[in-house]
Amino acid sequence: MYDLIIIGGGAAGLSASIYALRARLDMIMIEKIGIGGQIAVTDVIENYPGYRSLSGGELTNKFESHAKDFGLKVEFGVVEQIIDKGDRKIVKTDTKTFESKSVIVASGAQPRKLEVKGEKEFTGRGVSYCATCDGPFYNGKDIVVVGGGDTAVKEAIYLSKIANRIYMVHRRDRFRAEKILQEKLLSRPAEADAPKVDFIWNSVIDEIVGGERGVEKVSVRNLQKNEKREISAEGIFIFVGIIPNTEFIDAEKDNGGFIITNDRMETSIKGVYAAGDCRNTPLRQVATAVGDGAIAAVIAEEYISNLEGKAYPKRAG
Amino acid sequence: MYDLIIIGGGAAGLSASIYALRARLDMIMIEKIGIGGQIAVTDVIENYPGYRSLSGGELTNKFESHAKDFGLKVEFGVVEQIIDKGDRKIVKTDTKTFESKSVIVASGAQPRKLEVKGEKEFTGRGVSYCATCDGPFYNGKDIVVVGGGDTAVKEAIYLSKIANRIYMVHRRDRFRAEKILQEKLLSRPAEADAPKVDFIWNSVIDEIVGGERGVEKVSVRNLQKNEKREISAEGIFIFVGIIPNTEFIDAEKDNGGFIITNDRMETSIKGVYAAGDCRNTPLRQVATAVGDGAIAAVIAEEYISNLEGKAYPKRAG
Repeated sequence: MYDLIIIGGGAAGLSASIYALRARLDMIMIEKIGIGGQIAVTDVIENYPGYRSLSGGELTNKFESHAKDFGLKVEFGVVEQIIDKGDRKIVKTDTKTFESKSVIVASGAQPRKLEVKGEKEFTGRGVSYCATCDGPFYNGKDIVVVGGGDTAVKEAIYLSKIANRIYMVHRRDRFRAEKILQEKLLSRPAEADAPKVDFIWNSVIDEIVGGERGVEKVSVRNLQKNEKREISAEGIFIFVGIIPNTEFIDAEKDNGGFIITNDRMETSIKGVYAAGDCRNTPLRQVATAVGDGAIAAVIAEEYISNLEGKAYPKRAG
Repeated sequence: MYDLIIIGGGAAGLSASIYALRARLDMIMIEKIGIGGQIAVTDVIENYPGYRSLSGGELTNKFESHAKDFGLKVEFGVVEQIIDKGDRKIVKTDTKTFESKSVIVASGAQPRKLEVKGEKEFTGRGVSYCATCDGPFYNGKDIVVVGGGDTAVKEAIYLSKIANRIYMVHRRDRFRAEKILQEKLLSRPAEADAPKVDFIWNSVIDEIVGGERGVEKVSVRNLQKNEKREISAEGIFIFVGIIPNTEFIDAEKDNGGFIITNDRMETSIKGVYAAGDCRNTPLRQVATAVGDGAIAAVIAEEYISNLEGKAYPKRAG
C-alpha cells in the first residue's frame, strides 16, 4: 500500500509530488495521457514568476525533471473510481487497481464544448480546442475563434501569426481577458486593406457546416439584432471555458463539477485532497496550481503521519 | 491616485505585481528594506517547482527582473498605517503618503524571539536569526541552534558545514521538519570521537550569557527532568517560528496576528487583500506565496474595474 497516490501530472500534481517525495512519502502518480497537463499544450507562458517567457513544453520539462530528480514514478492509466475504505483508499484505473493511505486529485479540467450542430462531427477536421496543437494546419487560411477569456484572446494572438484572417466571435460586447492580452490582440498589425482580426461582438455560433474535407463555414447569430450571418472558414477554435475531470470522485462538488476544498485542500472525504484546476479555486494558473499542490502534499503527509499513530505537532510555518 | 499599492517585495508581492502589471494596473510597490523578503536571506531553495536548486538571492533576482520587465516601480519606506476611506485607501509610510483604490498586503513575517535574558543584549554579537547572514562568522566554532521546524533543521544542516560542533536544542522529543531534512541532519558525518551535531531534546534556553566579546555560553534546561546545564558556545541561532508584519493594518487577524482572508485573498476591509506569509495560510513557502499573489492581483483588478463602473463578468478561469 502506497502512502499517497497523486492523480494527474499537471502543474498541481507535479508540485505535490516534489513536496511529497521530499517528505519521503512512498507514492506514485497516475497520469492519463502525458505529463504536463494543460500547460504542456500552452504556447507561451509569461506569468509563472521566475520565468519571464517560455513554452508550456519547456516548463513541463522543468517540472518533470525536478520531480523525477526526487524519485517520481508515473503509472499511465485512466482513473475510473476511488473507493474510500477509511484508512485505505482504492484507486481503480482502466487496467489496474492501486491502494494507498491518501489521494491527491490533481486531474485538471478540459475544454467546454459549444454543443452546436457540426461541432462533434468536425472535431479534428476543422473544430479544435487547442491552437498550439492544431494552429499550424491553418497556415494562410481563414478561421473563427470563439470566446473572450484569457485563453481565447491568448490563442487568438497565437493564431493571428498563422492564419490569413481571424473572425473573433464573442457573446458579450467586451473581453474578460487580461488587459495586456486584449491590447496585444487589438493591436495586431492590419493588412493593407483587410484587418487581420475581425471582432464579432454579441454573437454566438449556431452551426458548423462542412463537407468531405472538413469545415467550410460557420453560422453566427447576433444576439441583440437576432441576425444571422455565415462566415467562410476552414477552422473554428473554441475557447469557452473548462469542465473539470472529476467524474471518478464522489467528493462534494460545486455546480460546475469542481471539487470543493478548504484552504488545506481537504475534500469532503478524509484523506483525499484536491489541487489545481479540478477544484473550486478562484483562479486557474500555473502559479496557483503549484501552491495548491504544495499545500495538499504537506497536509497529506500530516494525515499519514497521524494515521501511523505518531504525534505530529501542527505545522507552524 | 494609484489603482493598487502592494506592500512588501517578497515572493507574494512580486507575483502580485507581475499579474497586476500584465493587467495594466497603475501600481507601486512599497518595500521596507530590500526586494526578496525572506527568500532573499535563504541559503538554498529546492522546492520551488521548475528550479531544482538555487539560492534565495538568485530566485529573488529572477522574480525582480520578471516584474521589472513589466514595469515594476518600487518606493522604499516603512508602512505605518492604512486608512480606509472606502473607494480610496491612504497608505502612510515613515516619510510619505500614498493613495490608491486598492491595497495588497504582502508584508511577510519575521522571526519569533525566545524572549530570554541576554537575547536582545547579544543580538548581532552571537545571537542570530539568519544562518546565511551570520553563519560564516562561526567557522570552526561551537554554536547552539534552537528549534525543530523546517527552517531550524535546514539552517542547522547549513551551519554544520561551517561550525565545529552544533548543539541542537528543541523543546520536544522530535522534529516537525520535513523528513528529508531531518535525515540529512541526522546523518551528518560524525567526526572521529565527537559527533558534529548533539541533539538536546525536551529542552529550552534559560539564558544567554556573555561578555565584552559577545556570547560565551548558553544555559539550557531539560523540561522533563528540570535539570540545567551550561553549553559553551560563541553563537546561538534561533529558529522558533515567525510573527507577521501586520501591526499597521486594522483588518481582522487570528491569534498569531496573521491577517484572515478567504480563498480570494479578501480581508475584512473591502479593497484590501493579503497574500503570502502575513496571512493565515496553512503553509508558508515560495510556491504558495506566488499563488496567493496571483489571486490577490486578479481579484483586486476585478474590484477596481467594478469601481470604475465597468461591467466586469466574473472570471471563469
